Amino acid sequence: MIFDTVIHGGTIITMNPAHKIIAGGVICVKDGRIEAVDSLTNTECLPEGKEIVDAAGCLVMPGLVNTHTHMPMTLFRGLADDLPLDDWLGNHIFPAEAAWINPGNVRLGTQLACAEMLLSGTTAFCGGYFHENEVATVVEETGMRGVLGQGVIDFPAPGVPDASRNIQVVETYAERWKDRSPLIQPSIFCHSPYTCSAGTIRAAKDVARSAGILFQIHTAETRAEQGLIEEGNGMSPVQYLDRLGVLDEHTLLVHAVWVDEADIAAIAAKGAGISHNPESNMKLAAGIAPAVEFLNAGITVGLGTDGCASNNDLDLFQEMDTAAKLHKVHSLDPTVMNADTVLRMATIEGAGAIGLKSVIGSLEKGKEADLIVIDAQKPHLVPMYNPVSQAVYAVRGSDVRDVMVAGRLLVREGSLAAMDLPGILSRVNALSEKIRG
Amino acid sequence: MIFDTVIHGGTIITMNPAHKIIAGGVICVKDGRIEAVDSLTNTECLPEGKEIVDAAGCLVMPGLVNTHTHMPMTLFRGLADDLPLDDWLGNHIFPAEAAWINPGNVRLGTQLACAEMLLSGTTAFCGGYFHENEVATVVEETGMRGVLGQGVIDFPAPGVPDASRNIQVVETYAERWKDRSPLIQPSIFCHSPYTCSAGTIRAAKDVARSAGILFQIHTAETRAEQGLIEEGNGMSPVQYLDRLGVLDEHTLLVHAVWVDEADIAAIAAKGAGISHNPESNMKLAAGIAPAVEFLNAGITVGLGTDGCASNNDLDLFQEMDTAAKLHKVHSLDPTVMNADTVLRMATIEGAGAIGLKSVIGSLEKGKEADLIVIDAQKPHLVPMYNPVSQAVYAVRGSDVRDVMVAGRLLVREGSLAAMDLPGILSRVNALSEKIRG
Repeated sequence: MIFDTVIHGGTIITMNPAHKIIAGGVICVKDGRIEAVDSLTNTECLPEGKEIVDAAGCLVMPGLVNTHTHMPMTLFRGLADDLPLDDWLGNHIFPAEAAWINPGNVRLGTQLACAEMLLSGTTAFCGGYFHENEVATVVEETGMRGVLGQGVIDFPAPGVPDASRNIQVVETYAERWKDRSPLIQPSIFCHSPYTCSAGTIRAAKDVARSAGILFQIHTAETRAEQGLIEEGNGMSPVQYLDRLGVLDEHTLLVHAVWVDEADIAAIAAKGAGISHNPESNMKLAAGIAPAVEFLNAGITVGLGTDGCASNNDLDLFQEMDTAAKLHKVHSLDPTVMNADTVLRMATIEGAGAIGLKSVIGSLEKGKEADLIVIDAQKPHLVPMYNPVSQAVYAVRGSDVRDVMVAGRLLVREGSLAAMDLPGILSRVNALSEKIRG
Repeated sequence: MIFDTVIHGGTIITMNPAHKIIAGGVICVKDGRIEAVDSLTNTECLPEGKEIVDAAGCLVMPGLVNTHTHMPMTLFRGLADDLPLDDWLGNHIFPAEAAWINPGNVRLGTQLACAEMLLSGTTAFCGGYFHENEVATVVEETGMRGVLGQGVIDFPAPGVPDASRNIQVVETYAERWKDRSPLIQPSIFCHSPYTCSAGTIRAAKDVARSAGILFQIHTAETRAEQGLIEEGNGMSPVQYLDRLGVLDEHTLLVHAVWVDEADIAAIAAKGAGISHNPESNMKLAAGIAPAVEFLNAGITVGLGTDGCASNNDLDLFQEMDTAAKLHKVHSLDPTVMNADTVLRMATIEGAGAIGLKSVIGSLEKGKEADLIVIDAQKPHLVPMYNPVSQAVYAVRGSDVRDVMVAGRLLVREGSLAAMDLPGILSRVNALSEKIRG
């Protein structure tokens, strides 16, 4: 067989169930899928391919999976920092969204987010925002893989000025994108238990259930939210969502910082996934989610960067490093959240949390060819005793050399193959002059 | 006047006492020093220079100052991770040092560390290790600026097999390097209160005092150390060092995690500086140093990466991001450790902590020309509303384009101007094959 692409010579971190690492390996890709992942002892036997990628001196691993972000918020990167949450949201982010979030700017912010994610090794992500139809159109054009949630909130929102039309809008969106593109999965992003009524949450979950798509919801992010839900409903945010019947294996709880043992048991029992966003939770001083306890309870946990306004980047390599270190110091135990666990959260477990475990997240025959090649011959990446440790504790997003999604090389030698990056940057710079005012 | 170098067109973060930021600024350098830092409104008036650096679209800022590392430990990057501290040290790091730390390998590891630091925007650092004469020789060759401490410990150490000769060795080292090179300041690195006797600590501080050089000591890093010193001496590690008379403004306390209010008051009263190493403290699960309280007490605090075996890189940009976020979540207050505070710790305050405040750490007329140029036209760096926020929360080490130390451009367009990087990487890779065994 002549393959479409043959990638050879690198150290392959497969993330397969056996956690296999192959030094001097070869990956063969055909029709967007992985046909073979093997060791290669003799270069004379290199399989035939229309394109040959020499990965000698490189790490080859699954593309990273970002389980939570708000793509267009790249436009507000660093607009306001180091402020109390209500000041930040009420006086900076909400007004900026009201003034500047329109279909054109959503497309521009999404292009910027796709460029940043691809160049730092993220091949798939789960996002939620408004004007999600525009987001999905752009993501499909870039060739990235996305689970994309149209927002539901009981307030006037960008593109949905009449909140009573919320559910109708998400239904139309879900229908439009269901089975439309192999790269795009529609989803519903219900904002939170404190910004959506019980009726809205139930109705949104009903739409998600009917359409067979992922239901995402910010849950128990801050102590204030926990207090509010406890006060209004006499139970924790997670128990409240459980009572509303939304906890199941097609639900992704985002943040889950203020949860107790009973909450964790409920999440585990119902099979819901969690998107853990340590850097956003740190920067907004929301708190530290009990991610070690989630894992111990058998819950599927993925990593997320959250939006750029609260991070301030979409770099999952840095998020992995921070996640590993944060939980060690929080528990005063250096053995928790080891490098392998963190890398799983950013790949195969993240894929599981957003419903794509059978499709991506590991380099295995039959899976879609979503993978990245990392140039490991840099001073901060030598020596390399352990590829997984290196990926978590030393690799930076900028070390990513090549990025493939569904068999297409979207980044080659550190450059975007099919996006006009200078044009995007120039338009974002021009827009930011206006936003700055 | 014809300047040696004129850098123009970038946004200059001066870090001067007025925290001035200049859009479209110009910096003129002559004989290794900054002659002018100004705004430039008309390119026709560009000062004459032998070399002109166009920094349009870039950030220009002081080179970063790493206040604590162990250079040759780059050789052990990722050798062992996610282990209990005693297992990590006793079964991995100490045996590796005993087997592999010799003058040649110290030179190689130091070259690698210099390459990594320069390429990620660090121009000056404070280090401590053994065979420090070799370290100093290499650092001087690279053109970096270093405060370099020869180690003192009451055990056989690399190059000092007879611990009773410790003090004699540091005296010789200090004499040799005192006033030898404008870039190198000798220092004494006394390992810690639990690995050095009271007599050793006093004698080492006496040598430092006589020579007028910086005295560095790991202090109160772990709870175990705190317990040990409390048990043996009936007082905290900081109080113990104070009683030994080593706390003064030429002493740098490294880590200072397990300290109380009285300790903080003593450090502030005596004017000692602190090297805060959040990522190392997180990865080894040592704890979270009360850095906000140090700053509130008026103590000079710099940032440090620690050695590569416990981080696993020397990237101060990532360290800044982590420091800002860690203290916010630890105090559940997003307003603490703001971007400006963190950037000061990584520049002017770091310079102060290692005795170089009058020489480097800000871009001001008369200071040495240690500066970096950051390419800010990348997807993770646009838009830019606030240059300081961007530097702390979004810039990566790999965004550094040019690096100048004492007026010499050591990095141009992201490449080392005067080091054989492929040769260094190849020798490190070969050595690591042997270390792996």
